[in-house]
Amino acid sequence: MSIRVVAKHNIKPEKRDEFIALMKQLVENTKKEDRGVINYGLYQDVKDPNVIAMLEEWESEEAIDEHLKKQHFLDLLPALRECMAGTSSFNNFKAV
Amino acid sequence: MSIRVVAKHNIKPEKRDEFIALMKQLVENTKKEDRGVINYGLYQDVKDPNVIAMLEEWESEEAIDEHLKKQHFLDLLPALRECMAGTSSFNNFKAV
Repeated sequence: MSIRVVAKHNIKPEKRDEFIALMKQLVENTKKEDRGVINYGLYQDVKDPNVIAMLEEWESEEAIDEHLKKQHFLDLLPALRECMAGTSSFNNFKAV
Repeated sequence: MSIRVVAKHNIKPEKRDEFIALMKQLVENTKKEDRGVINYGLYQDVKDPNVIAMLEEWESEEAIDEHLKKQHFLDLLPALRECMAGTSSFNNFKAV
């Protein structure tokens, strides 16, 4: 059964453009991964532009674990964290 | 551009089965609506079964507004709210 990930972040307004540029780079790199990713897209709340989410679908939890260990992802993390304000939320969902 | 909705709820553990049954009824009713719904599915967090989300895709914000006024939705709301614990979160997302 595929897993749907919702990774939601609150972004510092002055860092929003930088965050979006970095996340687009992450999307491009992730789509090149050799296995497991079904959908991986960047989204912005229609009411609050500082709420930005990655909405993802993966073949399995193992594929997500592999993704989170990828060097291209780890390399971007410090710069992404610099753009974030407050806490992010991460949920891995399965269909009911 | 389509709109992706993430509606995430924390559920009282003793009310979880009831909530899921009601939400499945909501899914069935919503899929019968005459316009606007692209995807509308019920999901559960893989780590915390008391976190349940509807992951949705709609043709437009107008279609979502119409859905939220539908009698079948309004009729279910009080019973759904009885099952919820704490605050829910609702986000309408557009692709970046």
